[in-house]
Amino acid sequence: MRIALLGGTGDIGQGLALRWAYDTNHEVLIGSRDPERAREKAEEYETELDSRGVDREIKGFANAMAADRADVVVAAVPAYHLVDTIETVGDRLEDAVLVSPAVGMKRDDDGLHYNRPGAGSVTALAADAAPDGVPVVGAFHNLAAGRLADLDAELEWDTLLVGDDPDAKNIVADLAEGIEGLRALDVGGLANAAEVESVTPLLINVARENDGLHDLGVRFH
Amino acid sequence: MRIALLGGTGDIGQGLALRWAYDTNHEVLIGSRDPERAREKAEEYETELDSRGVDREIKGFANAMAADRADVVVAAVPAYHLVDTIETVGDRLEDAVLVSPAVGMKRDDDGLHYNRPGAGSVTALAADAAPDGVPVVGAFHNLAAGRLADLDAELEWDTLLVGDDPDAKNIVADLAEGIEGLRALDVGGLANAAEVESVTPLLINVARENDGLHDLGVRFH
Repeated sequence: MRIALLGGTGDIGQGLALRWAYDTNHEVLIGSRDPERAREKAEEYETELDSRGVDREIKGFANAMAADRADVVVAAVPAYHLVDTIETVGDRLEDAVLVSPAVGMKRDDDGLHYNRPGAGSVTALAADAAPDGVPVVGAFHNLAAGRLADLDAELEWDTLLVGDDPDAKNIVADLAEGIEGLRALDVGGLANAAEVESVTPLLINVARENDGLHDLGVRFH
Repeated sequence: MRIALLGGTGDIGQGLALRWAYDTNHEVLIGSRDPERAREKAEEYETELDSRGVDREIKGFANAMAADRADVVVAAVPAYHLVDTIETVGDRLEDAVLVSPAVGMKRDDDGLHYNRPGAGSVTALAADAAPDGVPVVGAFHNLAAGRLADLDAELEWDTLLVGDDPDAKNIVADLAEGIEGLRALDVGGLANAAEVESVTPLLINVARENDGLHDLGVRFH
């Protein structure tokens, strides 16, 4: 598979890029609004992998160029850039699966809270912004970016998948389970995305309130 | 500690009653709107414990009588009975900690969804209904009742605590951790309850969509 990480220079993009490059044979492309920045970060990831004895080529592109070449396109951008980013690459998504890991949150004195958009969820926003016929899968919402990007850290996490296209969801489940320590669980259709996205502020609040817990993910038993 | 389980004849009440009676020395009181029903279920729990070689006295009362005698009162009733139940026992709650495990959910074709009340969360509803000065702690929202009540089943779960009174939260954390396999995590103030309650429909949706997973709880890593 060829995977494009739009916003692959950001923290969740970095984590997914390193893990896929380290744990699998999928080809990883880094996208950014700024192609020079994408190339710099791609080289940084290559150096990190090289220091662990893994020789992988990771290339950087402008987002649209990265999307154009990929089987799976992950929109690893903040929620407030999501619709713009998808619209920018929309005509390059033919035959690709679009993956949305973004979550909208707001902060107050008590902690972080889920900021549910009018569309019902951020994943639903992504689906609304995607061209007709491009399947959208919500995934990777609840992974702590810092631990994901630390290849010394063992993961013991589930990632929850929502989407209305079962084939697309299977493709993303396989990609997810290619990452060591990550289990993909189906949570049904896009209409179930809000409860998945709500877990992200919860993880941050739990880490904030409990000494010794940080960079959390979740496992279902 | 003396713990009253209002609605202790229901499924989550049964699970908590059996676990506390089996794993700890706390005194467990079963409350119900119908005291006769409370006594029947209390006797049933005693029989279940006796069959495992544990000789415990569990008594059944009308909800108000159970609340009157307890240090900690758990309102183990469905969300739509919560305010009524708390109002019925309100004048018996002096010097007690009130615990709210209820979650409001609605079902559609895709699965279950969090039904957030106007108060912000069901736990906040409980706090609004409780008399002034009675500390309210949200806890035990995300425990699968069936597994909780099955004393043969090992737990590997976290329970998330929210509340604005740290002392009350510590009391409930100790009670929670008295149950084998249950870890209590602080999630801050009552304002953080909605994200905790949202996990409950998510657990049910995950179980529905994934073969081999059922009666789920969650653990943070």
